Amino acid sequence: MRKFSIGVDLGGTNLRIAAVDEKGTLLEKVSAGTEVSRGRSRVIEEMCNAIRHLMDQHKSSVTLTGVGIGIPGIIDAQTGTMRATANLPGWAGASVRQEIEQCLGCRVILENDAKVAALGEKWLGAGKDIEHLMILTLGTGVGGGIVLNGRIWPGTSGMAGEAGHITLEPGGVQCGCGNHGCAEQYVSATAIMRMYRNCVAAGGSALPNQDSSAQLSARSIYNLATQGDEDAKKIFGEVGRYLGILLGDLINLLDLPMYILGGGAAGAWDAFSPSMFAELRRRSTVYAAGVSLPAEALGIQDRVNSIPRTIITRALLGGDAGLYGAARLAMLSGP
Amino acid sequence: MRKFSIGVDLGGTNLRIAAVDEKGTLLEKVSAGTEVSRGRSRVIEEMCNAIRHLMDQHKSSVTLTGVGIGIPGIIDAQTGTMRATANLPGWAGASVRQEIEQCLGCRVILENDAKVAALGEKWLGAGKDIEHLMILTLGTGVGGGIVLNGRIWPGTSGMAGEAGHITLEPGGVQCGCGNHGCAEQYVSATAIMRMYRNCVAAGGSALPNQDSSAQLSARSIYNLATQGDEDAKKIFGEVGRYLGILLGDLINLLDLPMYILGGGAAGAWDAFSPSMFAELRRRSTVYAAGVSLPAEALGIQDRVNSIPRTIITRALLGGDAGLYGAARLAMLSGP
Repeated sequence: MRKFSIGVDLGGTNLRIAAVDEKGTLLEKVSAGTEVSRGRSRVIEEMCNAIRHLMDQHKSSVTLTGVGIGIPGIIDAQTGTMRATANLPGWAGASVRQEIEQCLGCRVILENDAKVAALGEKWLGAGKDIEHLMILTLGTGVGGGIVLNGRIWPGTSGMAGEAGHITLEPGGVQCGCGNHGCAEQYVSATAIMRMYRNCVAAGGSALPNQDSSAQLSARSIYNLATQGDEDAKKIFGEVGRYLGILLGDLINLLDLPMYILGGGAAGAWDAFSPSMFAELRRRSTVYAAGVSLPAEALGIQDRVNSIPRTIITRALLGGDAGLYGAARLAMLSGP
Repeated sequence: MRKFSIGVDLGGTNLRIAAVDEKGTLLEKVSAGTEVSRGRSRVIEEMCNAIRHLMDQHKSSVTLTGVGIGIPGIIDAQTGTMRATANLPGWAGASVRQEIEQCLGCRVILENDAKVAALGEKWLGAGKDIEHLMILTLGTGVGGGIVLNGRIWPGTSGMAGEAGHITLEPGGVQCGCGNHGCAEQYVSATAIMRMYRNCVAAGGSALPNQDSSAQLSARSIYNLATQGDEDAKKIFGEVGRYLGILLGDLINLLDLPMYILGGGAAGAWDAFSPSMFAELRRRSTVYAAGVSLPAEALGIQDRVNSIPRTIITRALLGGDAGLYGAARLAMLSGP
């Protein structure tokens, strides 16, 4: 009998659950709001009911291999305890995996949401047939997930891939993490909005008519840029420049064949990618070697033109990357 | 019969060759100058003669598993071609592995010198019993090598670990690689000397009496710092601060259990480490989580105090790390 697994994307706002077979075919998908204010037990109970429902629907025709859950926080892989989370109040410190397993009556696998998104893109998205890759999720914050040899690289504390907190400007904008100049402060949707507000305050462009200040979004600023607004274009030029510095660091360090940009702000690719690639060529010896920059510019005496080009590309699965990645994680860890 | 392998450290100035058994016991070590000016074929021929001599000495009592060679450059693992090198003029583009194998009459393994140093420290040095680690070699330049699951992580192009070219100051000092603000410009022996010269030029400390400007070395500046020279102390404070930023980036991204500082400038540990650790706590959420910084400072709501502490430590094998690492590489790849 064909095998399938259940993938869960448990966010601070939405809960989505999918039954996916071993070839990546979606059997069924359900969505619901996450009512975090009603408390952890209630959220877990409702999630488990929905998972059970999906299991029951399909177990007569396909064999269940496991349940994988992507969650916005840091999970201790050994104990299944949630170490930290910004979006699920009251969950940190709890033995979340144990609670879910007791409620559901079977083994589950928990992992950070950006990490499962990396695995999803590796399985069915931009990174199909690529064994090593990294995803950067450019949203309200900036997440990251590394896949090596087809598996998530969790790091010793389960905290690997925190590219959003790499320092890009040592004396730069203060970050929620306590550091100054984190990547998150220069390449997230939040950063785009801050830059635009600063620009308006300095007497630059007016805020878009259709938006009150409260409704200002990275998307509306992107729309302005595509309509030719010079200040908006300049902001995406800056975002691209910082993405180029960040990607240059990641390539110099890891030398992976592919880096994927996902999350809402990656939708502004057209606006930021020209300056991103230009900056990347200047910043990364390893990337430049792959795109055939003259050897003298690399500070090396000679080289052979056989170095593979690093691929920088957009995520293909959109918001479903985490859902598929969680299902895949359950398969990889299954019996 | 006990097994052994031959490890070679082929530098631009010195050639060192060792016979090492599978337990890491040094059977014999020979050294010679590398006369690069006499050409590649001659250097390879002399190296092979010395390797053959060592093989003959020991093969009656121990079984040879292979020959590993650490080399200052970038090697294409598949073809054995040298892609680039700063210290071996006329070697880039050559099929170096093939040439050595033809001369020696047996299979050899070539790898970058910083990468084999990482493996050496993992096998017999600071990283014994640690499966994942990274080394930074702080010398004239800054090299890096990553070990994951006990093996060197080479990257797609064999260029992984280039931490010396991570951007620390986007608008900073120009680097030989073409970028501005590379780590190499702030934490290498060369950087220490530049900073001190700038300080003298600005009317700060005089150059140490025992040194003419030409003989100024990072060590003599370190000696000044230990004698209480305020400017020299300030320079190592700066070096430590930049090392803190760099290590923070590496920890946030890879979350390895250990980072090792090697190379000549790591000898100034006493002078730079206080500011390095202070900066690291401020810069890395992942490191800070391990050293129990209050949760609020991490921008997260809560957490559990079970996060393992990341170890930052000095290399233990000194200049022999590459020699042992090359021998180990041959064992890992051997029959």
